[in-house]
Amino acid sequence: MPGLVSIYDLTRQDMEEIFEDTEKRLNAQPRKELSGKIVSLAFFEPSTRTYLSFETAAKKLGAEVIGFTGEEAISVAKGESLADTVRMLENYSDIIVMRHRFDGAAKFASRVTSKPVINAGDGKHEHPTQTLIDLFTVRRNFGFIDNLTFGLLGDLKYARVVNSLLRGLKAFRPKLAYLISPEPLAARREILEELNYPYREVREPHEVIGEVDVLYVTRIQKERFVDEQEYERVKESYKVDLKLVEQMKKDAIILHALPRVQEIDRRVDKDKRAKYFEQASYGVPIRMSVLVKYGVEKA
Amino acid sequence: MPGLVSIYDLTRQDMEEIFEDTEKRLNAQPRKELSGKIVSLAFFEPSTRTYLSFETAAKKLGAEVIGFTGEEAISVAKGESLADTVRMLENYSDIIVMRHRFDGAAKFASRVTSKPVINAGDGKHEHPTQTLIDLFTVRRNFGFIDNLTFGLLGDLKYARVVNSLLRGLKAFRPKLAYLISPEPLAARREILEELNYPYREVREPHEVIGEVDVLYVTRIQKERFVDEQEYERVKESYKVDLKLVEQMKKDAIILHALPRVQEIDRRVDKDKRAKYFEQASYGVPIRMSVLVKYGVEKA
Amino acid sequence: MPGLVSIYDLTRQDMEEIFEDTEKRLNAQPRKELSGKIVSLAFFEPSTRTYLSFETAAKKLGAEVIGFTGEEAISVAKGESLADTVRMLENYSDIIVMRHRFDGAAKFASRVTSKPVINAGDGKHEHPTQTLIDLFTVRRNFGFIDNLTFGLLGDLKYARVVNSLLRGLKAFRPKLAYLISPEPLAARREILEELNYPYREVREPHEVIGEVDVLYVTRIQKERFVDEQEYERVKESYKVDLKLVEQMKKDAIILHALPRVQEIDRRVDKDKRAKYFEQASYGVPIRMSVLVKYGVEKA
Repeated sequence: MPGLVSIYDLTRQDMEEIFEDTEKRLNAQPRKELSGKIVSLAFFEPSTRTYLSFETAAKKLGAEVIGFTGEEAISVAKGESLADTVRMLENYSDIIVMRHRFDGAAKFASRVTSKPVINAGDGKHEHPTQTLIDLFTVRRNFGFIDNLTFGLLGDLKYARVVNSLLRGLKAFRPKLAYLISPEPLAARREILEELNYPYREVREPHEVIGEVDVLYVTRIQKERFVDEQEYERVKESYKVDLKLVEQMKKDAIILHALPRVQEIDRRVDKDKRAKYFEQASYGVPIRMSVLVKYGVEKA
Repeated sequence: MPGLVSIYDLTRQDMEEIFEDTEKRLNAQPRKELSGKIVSLAFFEPSTRTYLSFETAAKKLGAEVIGFTGEEAISVAKGESLADTVRMLENYSDIIVMRHRFDGAAKFASRVTSKPVINAGDGKHEHPTQTLIDLFTVRRNFGFIDNLTFGLLGDLKYARVVNSLLRGLKAFRPKLAYLISPEPLAARREILEELNYPYREVREPHEVIGEVDVLYVTRIQKERFVDEQEYERVKESYKVDLKLVEQMKKDAIILHALPRVQEIDRRVDKDKRAKYFEQASYGVPIRMSVLVKYGVEKA
Repeated sequence: MPGLVSIYDLTRQDMEEIFEDTEKRLNAQPRKELSGKIVSLAFFEPSTRTYLSFETAAKKLGAEVIGFTGEEAISVAKGESLADTVRMLENYSDIIVMRHRFDGAAKFASRVTSKPVINAGDGKHEHPTQTLIDLFTVRRNFGFIDNLTFGLLGDLKYARVVNSLLRGLKAFRPKLAYLISPEPLAARREILEELNYPYREVREPHEVIGEVDVLYVTRIQKERFVDEQEYERVKESYKVDLKLVEQMKKDAIILHALPRVQEIDRRVDKDKRAKYFEQASYGVPIRMSVLVKYGVEKA
């Protein structure tokens, strides 16, 4: 059945309702809205951070959680078809949260099962709850999402958070999106063709950094480069350091889905524009809103 | 202390009481019958499917669950004796559910600890809760278990579900059991000598498939064959495909403990005789009955 | 913020309050003192035994538990700094229980986060909750901890439980501590310099075993020896067997933090001086006291 497979499954109004619901959760004691429900976390691709975030959200709502991640994740599907595994989870749980290394896995699962499926990342395709966290952080800091200039920096080709964010912005009216990446990691044509707002591809962060309201940083992965020397060369120019941050607007914000490795200098953490830890703190309440939306509407 | 180590631990009346208890659970809201209890799931041999099934059953009953499976399972016993590990679990929990790769591990554990032990599979020996699920599915479909003709197909030598099922049937009055397997995977002599009902060993499924009421399929494991060509040859003749199913009685049923790999053609899933997904759906309620039987009688 | 990083964080009075609190828990139904709290178990170094002990303690208190151990533990920190991982856990939980292979990891974590950190073992440095279990077992058996002769046997150099115990005894007035080990595994100079009570280093257990009230055994790890023949030679003289136990005082006690491998002969288990299984049974109630002390004082 339908769940949250793509950020396209949500209208602007849906998102705004989630944001308002999340606002209310920020300083409130959680209520047991999912009491008696079982949430399964099927992380075929290991991810401790996202797993713990969904687990915490579900438990705060009074749900029981079952699931797997880490090395188990690899053995669970050994020889068994994804369809059979999803049918098993359907027997055990009321909502299925799924991460998988294949693009489209969550959509496939949602067709096999009668339980709502929440996509917690499928291959290089999408990661819609991360986009809700990203946009919520923008809204908390600016009060709105429209009319801002975004700068997406780093790997725009393989990072699923970028796909979901670029698509999620279509529900709003961004002034402009700068897509800042080395050529081998440029955003995919098919995503760009979907966009309904102005964007511009840029190779050098310094060219545009002064115009950006929201800088969204992703990791540049070494393994994406055929030529290691090429990687070593570009790596430095895409690193967010104090020198780059100095050129930013005073009220700009810097986001990152975390974990980060080297792409943001640790000295930037103390700059008041660094909002990635604040952003991370919205993971649990946003996912509580999402779990309630899909888990309780069904009840 | 005594627990459910072998299907022999249960009389026909015990099983029928479990089946009646399970019937009541099928459409009822679970009650917190194990509230305040801790169930430990000690899966020394990884099994995500069985682990999640017991975990779900325990949590629906209000118990807390601790335990391990997957790769952890291997490190837990590193150097430590099984007896010491069981004594540790005894300190932490009220019921111990154990899977282990050695035959007899659950029996050994039940001698070391004063807490009830539920065998969730020990080597190639037994898997009694699976047999309860199997027999319950037969009973739900026919209304009874006696006087039926069973056909056990595939690996009858190493599959512990087969041992437990053959033994479990002794409490009933099966008309006949066909044991259908390639010669290298024939049922063990010592099991056959225990049986108190008619059985016949067969090499070709087509010979007897038309007489069978319950077809119980297990996987044929490649690694059991010395000669790979031999495996390739037999594999096909033990595959349940549309052609084989066509020859079955109209009201026969096909069971499989899952996960399946290639031994049942996916096109069979749509045939109304395919009951393995229904069978899988009884895993949680049967295990709830078992946990209550052993966890509450002690209280 | 401050938590339980070293046994030095507790005064004698703190410890005695914990012991009295634990006494009350031994035969009482647990109360949901941590209801609504989330305890995270961050086991960067795998340890099923300690993990399950803390998990059981937290769940008995009504807390929700999230966390990782086993193989996941290795991937969680892949590339990410410990500080960033701790900040993540801070978002998810009210108390952080941490095991890590680096000395000082818990202290570092406690500086990064505003949540209390409980050290569940950091490298070869400390393991303070184990010391509370050890001292509590002494107190339960003798009624007091002062004026006893201790014999610490085995690896005194790398075993963190030894460091914490030697330090923890400073809050009491032990009569004497015999440090019994082969030369390559002798206690560290810097620990000995901290002690405020009499101790004597000994090479042969037989020399002093008759004087000891509390024999504390640790495993001698083969990998610590450069010369394997040397290991084979010393191994036997540090094994607690019936012959050694025969020479002990009638009311002496033998402790071991478990898991044990070969260092205590299984036939010793039946001797009434063997208290290591009793000691293990105090793991959960002691950790319940600790979790309540740090988790509720904050509320």
